[in-house]
Amino acid sequence: MSIDAVLSRIDDQLPAAMERLREVLRIPSISTDPAYAAHCQKAADWLVADLQSIGVKAEKRVTPGHPMVVGHVEGEGPHLLFYGHYDVQPVDPLNLWHTDPFDPQIEDTDQGQVIRGRGASDDKGQLMTFVEACRAWRDVTGALPCRITFFFEGEEESGSPSLIPFMKENAKELSADLALICDTSMVSPGVPSIASQLRGMLKDEFTIHGPKIDLHSGHYGGPALNPLREISRIIASFYDDTGRVAVEGFYEGVREVPADLLRQWENCGFDEEAYLSAVGMTRPHGEEGYSTLVQQWARPTLEINGLWGGYQGAGSKTVIPAQAHCKLTCRLVGDMDPDQLRNKVRAHVEARLDADARVTWDGDLEGSPAAVMNTDRPEFERVRQALSDEWAREAVFCGMGGSIPIAGFFKDILGLDAMLIGFAQEDDAIHSPNEKYNVQSFHKGIRSWARVLDALSGS
Amino acid sequence: MSIDAVLSRIDDQLPAAMERLREVLRIPSISTDPAYAAHCQKAADWLVADLQSIGVKAEKRVTPGHPMVVGHVEGEGPHLLFYGHYDVQPVDPLNLWHTDPFDPQIEDTDQGQVIRGRGASDDKGQLMTFVEACRAWRDVTGALPCRITFFFEGEEESGSPSLIPFMKENAKELSADLALICDTSMVSPGVPSIASQLRGMLKDEFTIHGPKIDLHSGHYGGPALNPLREISRIIASFYDDTGRVAVEGFYEGVREVPADLLRQWENCGFDEEAYLSAVGMTRPHGEEGYSTLVQQWARPTLEINGLWGGYQGAGSKTVIPAQAHCKLTCRLVGDMDPDQLRNKVRAHVEARLDADARVTWDGDLEGSPAAVMNTDRPEFERVRQALSDEWAREAVFCGMGGSIPIAGFFKDILGLDAMLIGFAQEDDAIHSPNEKYNVQSFHKGIRSWARVLDALSGS
Repeated sequence: MSIDAVLSRIDDQLPAAMERLREVLRIPSISTDPAYAAHCQKAADWLVADLQSIGVKAEKRVTPGHPMVVGHVEGEGPHLLFYGHYDVQPVDPLNLWHTDPFDPQIEDTDQGQVIRGRGASDDKGQLMTFVEACRAWRDVTGALPCRITFFFEGEEESGSPSLIPFMKENAKELSADLALICDTSMVSPGVPSIASQLRGMLKDEFTIHGPKIDLHSGHYGGPALNPLREISRIIASFYDDTGRVAVEGFYEGVREVPADLLRQWENCGFDEEAYLSAVGMTRPHGEEGYSTLVQQWARPTLEINGLWGGYQGAGSKTVIPAQAHCKLTCRLVGDMDPDQLRNKVRAHVEARLDADARVTWDGDLEGSPAAVMNTDRPEFERVRQALSDEWAREAVFCGMGGSIPIAGFFKDILGLDAMLIGFAQEDDAIHSPNEKYNVQSFHKGIRSWARVLDALSGS
Repeated sequence: MSIDAVLSRIDDQLPAAMERLREVLRIPSISTDPAYAAHCQKAADWLVADLQSIGVKAEKRVTPGHPMVVGHVEGEGPHLLFYGHYDVQPVDPLNLWHTDPFDPQIEDTDQGQVIRGRGASDDKGQLMTFVEACRAWRDVTGALPCRITFFFEGEEESGSPSLIPFMKENAKELSADLALICDTSMVSPGVPSIASQLRGMLKDEFTIHGPKIDLHSGHYGGPALNPLREISRIIASFYDDTGRVAVEGFYEGVREVPADLLRQWENCGFDEEAYLSAVGMTRPHGEEGYSTLVQQWARPTLEINGLWGGYQGAGSKTVIPAQAHCKLTCRLVGDMDPDQLRNKVRAHVEARLDADARVTWDGDLEGSPAAVMNTDRPEFERVRQALSDEWAREAVFCGMGGSIPIAGFFKDILGLDAMLIGFAQEDDAIHSPNEKYNVQSFHKGIRSWARVLDALSGS
């Protein structure tokens, strides 16, 4: 058969698909707030029923937190696992929304129609692109084109506490040939994007202890070590004058971006000037010699996320505080090892500390390495072609500055390569008021998955 | 007449003087807490009555805040103005007190008897040393030895909001030849001390603005300027490797301590090791080449008193904050000019700021220069001799790291030189739980003032 019939069916059924999306968007499945637990259950129930309606053997699965939804369909060819999440972020500040976040509206905008509401983009809209593609396949052919496992989480926006235990307990059931994840953006509008590398993450936190107690800056100013000065000196020493991180061995495991990938990135439509000026920057502030995109996707960072000590209230207080505090995160690329990196950062601080100060550490000991997709697998090129066909634009393997741990978990726990494809746009305002998903993203997203299923099933 | 009769009277009447001190200590005159306003009135009333009992024409004077107590006695010879304050600090944390802070007890300790309670040292105990010396003079001679104005404040512990207006409005009434202030400590136990130089103060506060909004450290980590890193770099640049402040022109107006004064300081009994080890330091951290005492008393500082930005809660947040904040104070010595210094510090920051950042300032525009007493006046040497006689130990002209603005106000508003003499000890726990005043400080303090009045009146 030709994929054209499936694509036509998608076009015809778009209004019904939109209606289903609006239905699930009406369920306020905010996972972080216990007051919404029943709504998370309801969203899971809705998905189970919707999967069952297209012939998937789906069920809600209990966890210590919000339930998972797991569904299976048998079939020929490769076994795919599709991941998405049905939970959403809180909606505050509610007064900044122009519409009810849980009464999704279709709006005309200068970039076409959008569907506005919490979860429209992240991740209910994206999740449904895949489900609707499956529905169209089944409507037209009577079956899905290959064996598929559906795996929907309800705690992605609240730290996924149940995810790893659930994957470990159900590793056999969740095994597949390839994972598909729809929770990412396009590099720029209309440019189909496969995220092939994501930075990893290391979190750490330290306290510098100086004087035994808070001191009066008159009685002790001068003779006493000031931890705020000490922590500033140490943080400043993390970097050299060219924007490089000066921690010894920091760049171990970092690899330069291959020339062919770099060429793709240079032509991916990323608007550097818009990206920088949107946040008030006139130039990239990372390592000299690397483009903004490379700094964001392929270079490691050591960022200070929190810094505090002494008096923060109104007016002044003549205090030399006993302690100063710092929270930091590193973004990892290539083969950088989180555990080794943590030791290097800690050694850097300890080596520079004054003898009259001491440091204590209170970091998260779970770091995650960078996730680099196995794009050598032939499926990647086939999917890239399918996406290029749909969008009439060469699809790109892009990077991502953020960390999506799920890809690493699939690899580590299930031995599963993952492919991250998403149709969100940078301006979707995910996690913010007035979240939206372009109807074009939804429509062509569904068509994209239909083509991807075709390409992967070799039908 | 000989001073001996007055000193004998003081010795004889010590139990009664202690009883009067305990009486005024029982009044919880906490000035910062409006709930205690009536107690402040009561303490002022008590002082008015006590002054009247020794022939002083005293009255309570209304201010927008707590009242002043002003009293006058006529007399021959020089006109002295004595300043003290009857208000006290709050007592929290109350659970750390071993006794009721407002039920003062006489305790035996390994350093002799102490009177324990809020205000015992700061400043009711010290204030009463002068009043009791006057009482003894009157008891023995029927009059005070010279003309005296008593000036007691009730807002010293809450920022003295009424002080300057009151002094300006009553400048003529408060004029005198010399001010005596009893609100300071002895350099070390048993070493009579005249504070002849106090550091001045400059307060400032700045915010570094980077990105327009808080950013995700995954999406923007690398390309975006991080204000926490920027503020750390700028704070680090305030200092060179030898502990000197690296702000251009910072040391303008600073003078080296004269050799003879330095010799006094070297022999004043200051226990450097105890001072440092009490707060966990093994060496002084100010400018290299200066002793701990010189660093504390005679060198300027730029101290960071508060530093904050980004996330401070539990766990981590992958944020690059839009802003970072810093509160600082400088301690000034010699002829350093607060206004010029503020400009230098601000220029230092602005010159080092990245082009993608900006700084806003929110400092206190009222700086105070260092106060250097006019020790060339012959009264200083006479008083020094009187104190040396009482304590059988050479009295010293000491410095103070802190800033006592009252001395500067006397000079600026009333054109009055001030002499700061106090008998408190560093371990008196002023502003802390279990404040105490050594009975020896009280007894020999009264005797000291009796001798000082004798020396100054030339009787």
